[in-house]
Amino acid sequence: MSRFWSAKVHELTPYVPGEQPKVSNLIKLNTNENPYGPSPKVLEALKAEAGDTLRLYPDPNADNLKQALATYYKVTTNQVFVGNGSDEVLAHTFQGLLKQDKPLMFPDITYSFYPVYCGLYDIEYVNQPLTDSFEIDLNQYPSENGGIIFPNPNAPTGRVLPLSEIRTLLERNSDSVVVVDEAYIDFGGESAIALVNDYPNLLVIQTLSKSRSLAGLRVGFAVGNPELIDGLERVKNSFNSYPLDRFAISGAVAAIEDHVYFEQTCKAIMDSRNTLTEQLQALQFEVLPSATNFVFATHAEWEASELAAKLRERSIIVRHFKQERIQNYIRISIGTNDECQALVAALREILT
Amino acid sequence: MSRFWSAKVHELTPYVPGEQPKVSNLIKLNTNENPYGPSPKVLEALKAEAGDTLRLYPDPNADNLKQALATYYKVTTNQVFVGNGSDEVLAHTFQGLLKQDKPLMFPDITYSFYPVYCGLYDIEYVNQPLTDSFEIDLNQYPSENGGIIFPNPNAPTGRVLPLSEIRTLLERNSDSVVVVDEAYIDFGGESAIALVNDYPNLLVIQTLSKSRSLAGLRVGFAVGNPELIDGLERVKNSFNSYPLDRFAISGAVAAIEDHVYFEQTCKAIMDSRNTLTEQLQALQFEVLPSATNFVFATHAEWEASELAAKLRERSIIVRHFKQERIQNYIRISIGTNDECQALVAALREILT
Repeated sequence: MSRFWSAKVHELTPYVPGEQPKVSNLIKLNTNENPYGPSPKVLEALKAEAGDTLRLYPDPNADNLKQALATYYKVTTNQVFVGNGSDEVLAHTFQGLLKQDKPLMFPDITYSFYPVYCGLYDIEYVNQPLTDSFEIDLNQYPSENGGIIFPNPNAPTGRVLPLSEIRTLLERNSDSVVVVDEAYIDFGGESAIALVNDYPNLLVIQTLSKSRSLAGLRVGFAVGNPELIDGLERVKNSFNSYPLDRFAISGAVAAIEDHVYFEQTCKAIMDSRNTLTEQLQALQFEVLPSATNFVFATHAEWEASELAAKLRERSIIVRHFKQERIQNYIRISIGTNDECQALVAALREILT
Repeated sequence: MSRFWSAKVHELTPYVPGEQPKVSNLIKLNTNENPYGPSPKVLEALKAEAGDTLRLYPDPNADNLKQALATYYKVTTNQVFVGNGSDEVLAHTFQGLLKQDKPLMFPDITYSFYPVYCGLYDIEYVNQPLTDSFEIDLNQYPSENGGIIFPNPNAPTGRVLPLSEIRTLLERNSDSVVVVDEAYIDFGGESAIALVNDYPNLLVIQTLSKSRSLAGLRVGFAVGNPELIDGLERVKNSFNSYPLDRFAISGAVAAIEDHVYFEQTCKAIMDSRNTLTEQLQALQFEVLPSATNFVFATHAEWEASELAAKLRERSIIVRHFKQERIQNYIRISIGTNDECQALVAALREILT
């Protein structure tokens, strides 16, 4: 507390990211990073940036990256916004599109940064409860709202909605912005980018941190109607002209262009997830169906917090949320096959 | 305009950065970039980051960078805040420290992003006019204020205040935050970081974009009392957990640690600036005394806008501001000696 802070700062409840431990002998399955490094083509592009041109500002509009994304997703560049990680894209979206007279709607169990943004920008919100089986039920969302945002697949549950349900929502909800936050979509869902030309109030947000193996580079993007994108550009250009550095721009371009590596690593992760799910079920875990690079699991006989602590003793970190309804679940990021097998072996040891 | 924007977005007047042309055959003296590339040690550190670990999030607190800055500036790490360019640091400072009941004070001629931030965060402000010789007169600043911010040296004038005048202000202004924005301090000024232990309301902001040759990497920082830093951390952690990517962190650490290269390139630029100033004066320019890597100059017989246009025809870009009081000045970034001489030759041709 300080008398020098703006009034707002006293009220903030900042987001707490998953632990980033500084020791390297851990099996880190707590922040949904990709177990595979970025594509060799990405590394080549990044090495090429380490030169004299770093003395110059990057392109403030990151046009090359917008073009690469537009080509890949078959949209136009004025339908694409880019930012310093999808968290920055989300922040600008909350401030620029989701602050309205009526309250914003999002699930009760979801990405825990959403209420933090609402606090930062004084946005009123109403939580819509997930079903008993932890599914988002868009039919529940009231037609009176100042915007709707949800991750698809949802986090930390991992459950995905089919595009048909999102289309049904958009058919009946045309007066407020609908944001689909697709951080994990490439691990088994169908992207709502396919719908942006049909619904001018739809914004789809993605990140290169998960399926593109670039959490360390900080690149996120949004795709939607040019009017929505223009609103985000106005906020961005009132905040920071150059949010993406030269590495972020060229590494992201190379990542988007290397389809083959991307598809291979996504498939490997989905295969590992399916194997791990079966192994966890064999150990009496209940595992929610996942379309992500993590699984959300609970065990009838063990407290989740205790399991997380015992895994930690064995140098394996998973994530546990002290939150109502999910306090008995652990979220396990999909690691390499070796990491998954080390986890299963550790759990077997703990449970018996 | 869009019915889907938050009300605020309609009112914004975004910042317009200096042009970043995409052709490379220009002599670019318009955005105060360093004519010398980053230190070889920085390039080595950056190349080492292009590897498998990019799949992992960076350190959200950038502790290594805070430690390098704390060591260099002889402060403690809890007196250091880092961000994605000094523009992001400024944005969080406006939102977290400078939004108060009383109006913020800053010069009438200064960094043109300040009023943009005020617009974004609904901060009332009052401009304090520079003197006739374009100096900041801190004695003019009223004691009733919600905060004071000014660049030292000021931009785009280039004039610097001695530390004694800043100390005098701090002695009489202890109830609101004073921000000294030192983007150009390493080119001939004395940093107010020397005063942070004496005044808990002083925040000093710097960037690695100019004197450290890293405009393309996007790193800025603030130094001040731990309470002020904590306020900024709270805003940052409610906005984006990981604003600095892995390249930004390790490149910045290497840049701060390579004192020798830093001092050499700063000296070379100051030498070029002094030579260029004399040459411009010989061409009948009036040149404001500069403590930066640019000069601000006016010619009695030529319109500044016309000079800028004629230089542009000769593939040399300088910056001209269409703003009252300074519309007849051009701002020329200090290039390499060859670039400065090409500029002088072009001006000689234009003027005769």
